[in-house]
Amino acid sequence: MNKVNKLKIFNDPIYGFITIPNSLIFDLIAHKYFQRLRRISQMGMTYLVYPGAHHTRFHHAMGSMHLMQKAVNVLRFKGVDISQEEEDALLIAILLHDIGHGPFSHAMEHSIVTGVSHEAISLLFMERLNQEFNGSLTLAIQVFKGEYHRNFMCQLISSQLDMDRADYLKRDSFYTGVAEGNINAERLITMLNVVDDELVVEEKGIYSVEKFLVARRLMYWQVYLHKTSVVAEQLLMRVLKRAKELSNKGVDLKASSALTYFLKNDINKSNFTIDTLDVFAHLDDYDIVSAMKEWQYHDDFVLKNICSMIINRDLLKVKLKDKKHKIEDVQAHKERLMKQHHISAEEAGYFVFTGEVSNQAYELKSQNINILSKSGKIKDIVKASDQLNLKALSKPVTKYYICYPKE
Amino acid sequence: MNKVNKLKIFNDPIYGFITIPNSLIFDLIAHKYFQRLRRISQMGMTYLVYPGAHHTRFHHAMGSMHLMQKAVNVLRFKGVDISQEEEDALLIAILLHDIGHGPFSHAMEHSIVTGVSHEAISLLFMERLNQEFNGSLTLAIQVFKGEYHRNFMCQLISSQLDMDRADYLKRDSFYTGVAEGNINAERLITMLNVVDDELVVEEKGIYSVEKFLVARRLMYWQVYLHKTSVVAEQLLMRVLKRAKELSNKGVDLKASSALTYFLKNDINKSNFTIDTLDVFAHLDDYDIVSAMKEWQYHDDFVLKNICSMIINRDLLKVKLKDKKHKIEDVQAHKERLMKQHHISAEEAGYFVFTGEVSNQAYELKSQNINILSKSGKIKDIVKASDQLNLKALSKPVTKYYICYPKE
Amino acid sequence: MNKVNKLKIFNDPIYGFITIPNSLIFDLIAHKYFQRLRRISQMGMTYLVYPGAHHTRFHHAMGSMHLMQKAVNVLRFKGVDISQEEEDALLIAILLHDIGHGPFSHAMEHSIVTGVSHEAISLLFMERLNQEFNGSLTLAIQVFKGEYHRNFMCQLISSQLDMDRADYLKRDSFYTGVAEGNINAERLITMLNVVDDELVVEEKGIYSVEKFLVARRLMYWQVYLHKTSVVAEQLLMRVLKRAKELSNKGVDLKASSALTYFLKNDINKSNFTIDTLDVFAHLDDYDIVSAMKEWQYHDDFVLKNICSMIINRDLLKVKLKDKKHKIEDVQAHKERLMKQHHISAEEAGYFVFTGEVSNQAYELKSQNINILSKSGKIKDIVKASDQLNLKALSKPVTKYYICYPKE
Amino acid sequence: MNKVNKLKIFNDPIYGFITIPNSLIFDLIAHKYFQRLRRISQMGMTYLVYPGAHHTRFHHAMGSMHLMQKAVNVLRFKGVDISQEEEDALLIAILLHDIGHGPFSHAMEHSIVTGVSHEAISLLFMERLNQEFNGSLTLAIQVFKGEYHRNFMCQLISSQLDMDRADYLKRDSFYTGVAEGNINAERLITMLNVVDDELVVEEKGIYSVEKFLVARRLMYWQVYLHKTSVVAEQLLMRVLKRAKELSNKGVDLKASSALTYFLKNDINKSNFTIDTLDVFAHLDDYDIVSAMKEWQYHDDFVLKNICSMIINRDLLKVKLKDKKHKIEDVQAHKERLMKQHHISAEEAGYFVFTGEVSNQAYELKSQNINILSKSGKIKDIVKASDQLNLKALSKPVTKYYICYPKE
Repeated sequence: MNKVNKLKIFNDPIYGFITIPNSLIFDLIAHKYFQRLRRISQMGMTYLVYPGAHHTRFHHAMGSMHLMQKAVNVLRFKGVDISQEEEDALLIAILLHDIGHGPFSHAMEHSIVTGVSHEAISLLFMERLNQEFNGSLTLAIQVFKGEYHRNFMCQLISSQLDMDRADYLKRDSFYTGVAEGNINAERLITMLNVVDDELVVEEKGIYSVEKFLVARRLMYWQVYLHKTSVVAEQLLMRVLKRAKELSNKGVDLKASSALTYFLKNDINKSNFTIDTLDVFAHLDDYDIVSAMKEWQYHDDFVLKNICSMIINRDLLKVKLKDKKHKIEDVQAHKERLMKQHHISAEEAGYFVFTGEVSNQAYELKSQNINILSKSGKIKDIVKASDQLNLKALSKPVTKYYICYPKE
Repeated sequence: MNKVNKLKIFNDPIYGFITIPNSLIFDLIAHKYFQRLRRISQMGMTYLVYPGAHHTRFHHAMGSMHLMQKAVNVLRFKGVDISQEEEDALLIAILLHDIGHGPFSHAMEHSIVTGVSHEAISLLFMERLNQEFNGSLTLAIQVFKGEYHRNFMCQLISSQLDMDRADYLKRDSFYTGVAEGNINAERLITMLNVVDDELVVEEKGIYSVEKFLVARRLMYWQVYLHKTSVVAEQLLMRVLKRAKELSNKGVDLKASSALTYFLKNDINKSNFTIDTLDVFAHLDDYDIVSAMKEWQYHDDFVLKNICSMIINRDLLKVKLKDKKHKIEDVQAHKERLMKQHHISAEEAGYFVFTGEVSNQAYELKSQNINILSKSGKIKDIVKASDQLNLKALSKPVTKYYICYPKE
Repeated sequence: MNKVNKLKIFNDPIYGFITIPNSLIFDLIAHKYFQRLRRISQMGMTYLVYPGAHHTRFHHAMGSMHLMQKAVNVLRFKGVDISQEEEDALLIAILLHDIGHGPFSHAMEHSIVTGVSHEAISLLFMERLNQEFNGSLTLAIQVFKGEYHRNFMCQLISSQLDMDRADYLKRDSFYTGVAEGNINAERLITMLNVVDDELVVEEKGIYSVEKFLVARRLMYWQVYLHKTSVVAEQLLMRVLKRAKELSNKGVDLKASSALTYFLKNDINKSNFTIDTLDVFAHLDDYDIVSAMKEWQYHDDFVLKNICSMIINRDLLKVKLKDKKHKIEDVQAHKERLMKQHHISAEEAGYFVFTGEVSNQAYELKSQNINILSKSGKIKDIVKASDQLNLKALSKPVTKYYICYPKE
Repeated sequence: MNKVNKLKIFNDPIYGFITIPNSLIFDLIAHKYFQRLRRISQMGMTYLVYPGAHHTRFHHAMGSMHLMQKAVNVLRFKGVDISQEEEDALLIAILLHDIGHGPFSHAMEHSIVTGVSHEAISLLFMERLNQEFNGSLTLAIQVFKGEYHRNFMCQLISSQLDMDRADYLKRDSFYTGVAEGNINAERLITMLNVVDDELVVEEKGIYSVEKFLVARRLMYWQVYLHKTSVVAEQLLMRVLKRAKELSNKGVDLKASSALTYFLKNDINKSNFTIDTLDVFAHLDDYDIVSAMKEWQYHDDFVLKNICSMIINRDLLKVKLKDKKHKIEDVQAHKERLMKQHHISAEEAGYFVFTGEVSNQAYELKSQNINILSKSGKIKDIVKASDQLNLKALSKPVTKYYICYPKE
């Protein structure tokens, strides 16, 4: 097939147009592994709080690639030498960085498979694709693994100012309608540079970085850790847990072939084979939602009720505060429930539970954001900011929640 | 429960905030019938062309209600008397106008149930809810059916300038990223008025109405009737058709309970009972996509291939032109396919077919858009526009497509 | 001076950033001739109607240059060969295309100097700069005059789809807040191409061109020919006319040196010398407004009243309609005024007058917008548009106004 | 005149539409005192750096009034009782809060008149208008002076979260194109409330307030205190200073009548009479720019050169740093200049000077921003913010500049 025919432009509500730069990338996007990302929600069940948030991993991956194109242009304009091969590696690595995400992105990351991160699965997918595409992903894989000798390239893929973050903060803010979370990705990229193989932000961008960190913090507390998102995610995890329990006991559960596989097998790092990857490649949001729609009529009290809560958005009550909730409160809610529905303490525990959420707006210890002063010196943003005490942002904030059924 | 506690605000990427005005509307939105709309894509499979277009009927219904609130405010400000009860009826009618949509909105409207429009099903849902809510939807139902004596209220629900259209054009343009389809809904609403019980646009709004019609036309040809959307929709219909055929022959098909019901029963106007509605209320995009994901590994050549095409976005080739495609071309493609895969003519017909799409930017004969001149006279927009020949827009344009597999 | 140091980026509310591509263009922008454009309002006195419309010729020139950079990139990407020298010529020609505008842009074009268009004066400025910059504007001048052998380059500077128009429609819509006049300049440019040395729009852009023409028409009637803009412009012209009359009679008028020159000398094509250009280069909006501020306390009834009307935005009443106003109406208003203020018919004529405004949304006879069909044929947009009768847009629409003092 | 006829809507690029709520406010806006604000730039000479920043005090005043309408609606919705009379007072007070600004807003505040703040002059204008409008501004004046007994009303006019600030930050960010300075005024207002007569922000708005403060800080350092804005402002002040000196010496200077008055008279608090106000009401940006245009050809070396620098945007070189510049550096520049142009030390001082700029993102000691916690307690934002060390923002940051001519 003619290469030129494959050049394509996508409409994007955020950036206007996204261009697919070459035939290899076109083919990767067309691959069924990548097309699967169209069926994986970027923000899990956040759409239960922000009804606009139905965007997908597919769209985010495309957006990240677009920003990477911008970043490469800016750096080259400033004299940073990036070869064609390196550019392709950057674009492919960012395009595929999330290809290992399972249903509902982070929400179920630890429920379906135990102890295997989505990054690890992304890597497995990339290696598989590398075989299929005759080694043309080798350099991309090196960059993705952070093993390429040019450090700034690895930082563009994964750091506190990488193109992944730049796109998802902007995109999530856009689709939720939380306009204040909006970051000016284009401007930040304009101020990138490379010094001693380190990605840096030029000094005049210091206020923009500050604003980026504050916007990120706002998105965390207002969106990602919104109490309703948290409870929905917790319930989702409990659906899988319960289903596995029942399945282990031999209870029959209507589910898709792929989901059935993961219910019946305990998959972890040691037994995640190439065959597992094949099944995993068939799993997406649709398997989970469809199962829950069926299970809301199952006999099991726990399973049916949690599923119904999620499907009909009739969730548990949730309270968030700065201190841990008292064990007595938890106990009281549980007992009320046990009595009311004649269920065991263990069953009640599916509906009454506590937990914590935590966020650190800036990590001081790794992958720092460096500011390049006019004099040529490089400083951590925390030290470069003259007034705003960014160091405070590196202190994790933890909040504690309790969930229980409405009375 | 306290009414005030139920007052809620939603974030919307388009309008900023959407307010839920009262407790009844809050309860309708919380109802599982309405929550189902969260799982029905507003634009069917258009996201295969425009990856941002994952917004739902739920969101569109909320947006239409928001615009209706604006319209009521504007009209009251201009001295049009609208009682509290009438306002509620308008808000409820627009909120529920699409509640009868099935999976993928229009795409499957005629495949799952025969000869029952989504409006008819919306009405059934509304009547059912009216029972549940002790008659508080009675006036809304009258307005929805176009039977209320105040004609302009019916026009706000359904006409060539209704709040449904105002929201979906704006929303679809926004989420597809086809910025040029953007209409200025707020401005159009600002220029509404009522004369002799007819909804009119004040004269100074004439150029805005022109632009609205041209934007609508652009959305039709660039988005709604985009050739890839058309082929995806056609394939979707054929999936259902084939599945029903196989089901009728007794072939076993893995599917959700709700979908199984509609595969095994031919539902039409005469046998659409209250029980049917109950099952229909469980059907959404997830049933269809999950089924297709399973069916792509079915034994049936036709079913498996169509499903795989949709799931992996590896669609048929499609050509669009102004004249009908020659029967010989269709025949040639069919024969090639029959030979290549040893399939029957009937089976080949699932992959090679022609059809037409048609759009009329302005309907001259019904529900005209009226312009109120400064002198107080009312004219159809077609006559009021001094230069742009809008009459031409009332001539339907038809284009003809042919679909066949890539070689 | 170091070339690199001169590279600069401007913030633009519309396009985000505007880059100055090279040192020559930097120097042209820094030249006092060009800096003068900072003091010339792009839209004359339209800010009396749309208070946001204070943008300048300077900003528009920068914006047009930015769009030209985009257009060059798009065309090169599509294989159109444009040399570095040609690109510079395009950028310079569009940057300087309006440098000959006098105070309040079009409003006073025929009052200060007789029979010399702003384009002619732009050319004089360009030739003068060409001397100063040792011939480096020679190619730009050729392109500006439409004499360069590559026709599409001349069309990018001046045609019905040139970069001038693309920027001013977008910019004027943006600053007035008339959001519906917004055109998608970026998208239109994306669809440009060159065939047989003609600038064409690819077929898929047909609806965008339609929308561009309709938006342009809307801007004309809603903004450029808004009745209050019209009356302000008419009064502005009459201020100059009256001041010249008085000046000719030897009446002393406080004014800036530059304005005094044009009051005391009748400048036309034949006597517009290099010295005239020198004085013209000092004339801008500030000369006119300052003069009017003084003249509102002059003895002359006509001069003082017109100036006061403009300065305090207490304008004449204006009525706009489709037919000519009756001579008797004009006469009646005049007589009332003569009687009331004991002034002559000639003096009353400054306050009571009629006129017409006219717009043609698309010119059929010159500089057509060509659509390139997929088959490779080129058609005028009027013929290519399948339904919308664009031919009607080529019929000029005329409206008639009458102005007279409030009673 | 009919009240209804006076109701009017303005287009605003930022808020869409601004409504004039009643006849009194319509008449105030139409008054020549208020119309004068159309000729006073909101951001002084910032347009020399950000070419889009030509918006006026007129537009800002309208925008602030619009936000005040929103705030009144929100507070009433939350049960805060605000009478019609009080609403009018709020709208009028905010509309007129800046009416006392002289040419170029802050830039010349201390050059034209000595020791009289623009707030004091605003008050004089308001009192004059109160006479003209028969006492209908009495309540507005009380609120403006901070003397009304309902404290939250005074805070809406003047505090660290008043409607003035909310509009100008948003508007200045919009027109400069520094998108990151954008604040979400609408959202902040949505979260206002009143407790114990104090204006508070509800707890969920805490991250929005943080972001507001960071955006404000960004606007200060990136825009308001941009080194080129600073040098332009300094030069502007020196023009006036020099012109006054020359005028005192009896040197003739061409200038408008109003400007001449202020050159020839030393106006301060004690001699600012009602007649002074009359002259002041004629003074705006146009007087200053026109004068500088003439003066760039004056005989005086200092005056002519400073004027020419501003008019042709050929400014002094400026360096900004964290420490004071050395006295020897200043001296060296001065001596070079004296020698080169044979001028006195005093004259050279007009071109070589140092100074400091300072900003405090949050004032800890007055007009605090209060956060209302869910438990009903009120905390200063500095204490309520759990992680971001806002206290640091209350420490003033000072930077030091040196200006001298390019070599």
